[in-house]
Amino acid sequence: MELLKQRILQDGHATEDDVLKVDSFLNHQMDIALLNEIGKEFRRRFEGEPVTKILTIEASGIGIAAIAAQHFGNVPVVFAKKTKSRNLDGALYTAQVKSFTKGIDYEIQVSQKFIGPDDCVLVLDDFLAKGQALKGLLKIVRESGAKLAGCGIVIEKGFQDGGKLLRESGVRVESLAIVSSISGGKVTFAE
Amino acid sequence: MELLKQRILQDGHATEDDVLKVDSFLNHQMDIALLNEIGKEFRRRFEGEPVTKILTIEASGIGIAAIAAQHFGNVPVVFAKKTKSRNLDGALYTAQVKSFTKGIDYEIQVSQKFIGPDDCVLVLDDFLAKGQALKGLLKIVRESGAKLAGCGIVIEKGFQDGGKLLRESGVRVESLAIVSSISGGKVTFAE
Repeated sequence: MELLKQRILQDGHATEDDVLKVDSFLNHQMDIALLNEIGKEFRRRFEGEPVTKILTIEASGIGIAAIAAQHFGNVPVVFAKKTKSRNLDGALYTAQVKSFTKGIDYEIQVSQKFIGPDDCVLVLDDFLAKGQALKGLLKIVRESGAKLAGCGIVIEKGFQDGGKLLRESGVRVESLAIVSSISGGKVTFAE
Repeated sequence: MELLKQRILQDGHATEDDVLKVDSFLNHQMDIALLNEIGKEFRRRFEGEPVTKILTIEASGIGIAAIAAQHFGNVPVVFAKKTKSRNLDGALYTAQVKSFTKGIDYEIQVSQKFIGPDDCVLVLDDFLAKGQALKGLLKIVRESGAKLAGCGIVIEKGFQDGGKLLRESGVRVESLAIVSSISGGKVTFAE
């Protein structure tokens, strides 16, 4: 997605070999007009999929998923929670996730009320690197019995193996920008 | 906001004296059409305020704020973070917040890059009870030098004192549904 790649080049900051900061438009401050273009592009890529739910994970996925849902006929968005809360009860789907960004392991949780065998689920997230969060979300979709439409990712770090492994396992992964390297502060995209 | 109150009565669950679960449409699964009506109502209430940024807090505020921003001319949304992340660096505004729902204290953080003296900030969140998160966000707005347009809240627990204290301190707080009691599993709204 050309608009997104241009924005990453213009406003993204690659400060280490494996960190790409996009906090000015994607995961701390959010550019809502850009999110709508991202939502339209996800719709174009998953055209024909009878998506009934969008599943994402707090926190950065939520804005992306909420805006994207408008381009999928306002399907409900469910966001997996990373911490236990008094607001979640009843039967839960859970999965263990390792965060390399935050250096911790955590359990993600989704109420069983909101995803089931009648659903066709599109999983959306901001980043795909080693694919830990995505694997957790996919485990939850599998356990729910729902059909998986696929995964839509805003930025994939193509130099890490998460996307490769997921695609090899048969999961459809659509990444709007695939970064092939961010060495020396310079961002290069895969073709 | 009548539509919201009806939805709370229909799909909300009051399981203890102070907990109102709205996870089926607001803070775990999100009804995007409802969020758009909520965004329109915030726009109506803050008509005339020259809002340049919407500030919220992860996680449940993000979807509400992202959708609402579309009704404020697509102003950028900034969400305060509750945990340290490698994706946040540089100078930060911080505030200490006590969470009664999760039983913990935490520090919220906003990059100083994204709010400043030229901004007019609308603060949005899903719930207002004792007002701890909101107070933290307001401290950050104050420190940034930005003008505060006010606070837009989806559900205020009117039987707790957060809203009262904030209004008495001169802050404009617009709550779309004010719950006056949830005793015995029955939700009652303030007039």
